[in-house]
Amino acid sequence: MTEIATARRSRITPEREAELYRAVLDLLREVGYDALTMDAVATRTRSSKATLYRQWGGKAELVAKAVRHDKPGASAGGVDTGSLRGDLHALTMRSDDCEMEQNSALMRGLAMAIHGSPDLLKAFKEHLIEPEMAEFRNVLQRAIDRGEVRADNPALDYVPHMMIGAFAARTMLDEQPPTQAFLLSYIDAVVLPALGVSTTT
Amino acid sequence: MTEIATARRSRITPEREAELYRAVLDLLREVGYDALTMDAVATRTRSSKATLYRQWGGKAELVAKAVRHDKPGASAGGVDTGSLRGDLHALTMRSDDCEMEQNSALMRGLAMAIHGSPDLLKAFKEHLIEPEMAEFRNVLQRAIDRGEVRADNPALDYVPHMMIGAFAARTMLDEQPPTQAFLLSYIDAVVLPALGVSTTT
Repeated sequence: MTEIATARRSRITPEREAELYRAVLDLLREVGYDALTMDAVATRTRSSKATLYRQWGGKAELVAKAVRHDKPGASAGGVDTGSLRGDLHALTMRSDDCEMEQNSALMRGLAMAIHGSPDLLKAFKEHLIEPEMAEFRNVLQRAIDRGEVRADNPALDYVPHMMIGAFAARTMLDEQPPTQAFLLSYIDAVVLPALGVSTTT
Repeated sequence: MTEIATARRSRITPEREAELYRAVLDLLREVGYDALTMDAVATRTRSSKATLYRQWGGKAELVAKAVRHDKPGASAGGVDTGSLRGDLHALTMRSDDCEMEQNSALMRGLAMAIHGSPDLLKAFKEHLIEPEMAEFRNVLQRAIDRGEVRADNPALDYVPHMMIGAFAARTMLDEQPPTQAFLLSYIDAVVLPALGVSTTT
């Protein structure tokens, strides 16, 4: 426990931050977003509500950052394998099947709350959707710079829709969470051909 | 009102059926799936619960059929324009933007309920997802038969994921319901190129 250490400092340690995020995700799975309170987070993590509010501003931001923190490789910087196929596969491989299943269940539970809470939607856009979109944009820009994809390919605008859509549709249509094998196969069958990239290289 | 006529018959009239489905969708939007009761449907539609159960078996099937009935063209048979692009565009054009927005809001509200209720999931698969998948399979089979798409194109298995995924991702990423213009552009930029079909014809 780093309780004493963090109490003395204005910023909490990364270990303590990770511990807090884990507790928030546990509570989310147990009671859902609407019933989750800052009081419960404070009690569970033996911290003061004042600290939580000072550090995160509010429930929406705390939850968005907890979900973001849980995503593997979120803070590891971009991938750069030298080919678009390599980059998209590497982004997919950062989450193993177990993590994707947990993520899928969590997002399903949060989908309703997001549409009922403008705060949560804003926090999700800022801390989760926007960083992921930026990562896709980087990967695609490098593919354009290398001459792999034409800058005017109309599918470029839809890469996030293709990827996030596959994730959502898999859960709904096939009644199972997306696996790495499914997403890699989808990238090769759909995303790369739509972008005019050969998948046989 | 066809109250008297339908009371005498074992099967209700199509007009009365449509009226019942409208009432179910109104209730769904008002109170959500979990709080919707067969009692409320019976009261709202001035019918007996016995009739509702005899005709639909239960709440899950009644709701799934009401949503299905609301989808334009659901019972109009398949489209057949002579080209894959024409067929996919025609399927999209069956719902106008206003209907898509209503549909999107309804599905968002039902997403949570579906995952909490195996009955509802089963009814949705049977009455909504399966008929839609069958329609896609018909359209794609004709494209293969015409020689437009190769029978071994790996994207064939993912057409439902591409289409349903675009619908879901649009709502989430762009914070707006999918429009006809968005879906037609997505079909031309993503779905047809992934299937190896030229969009310039």
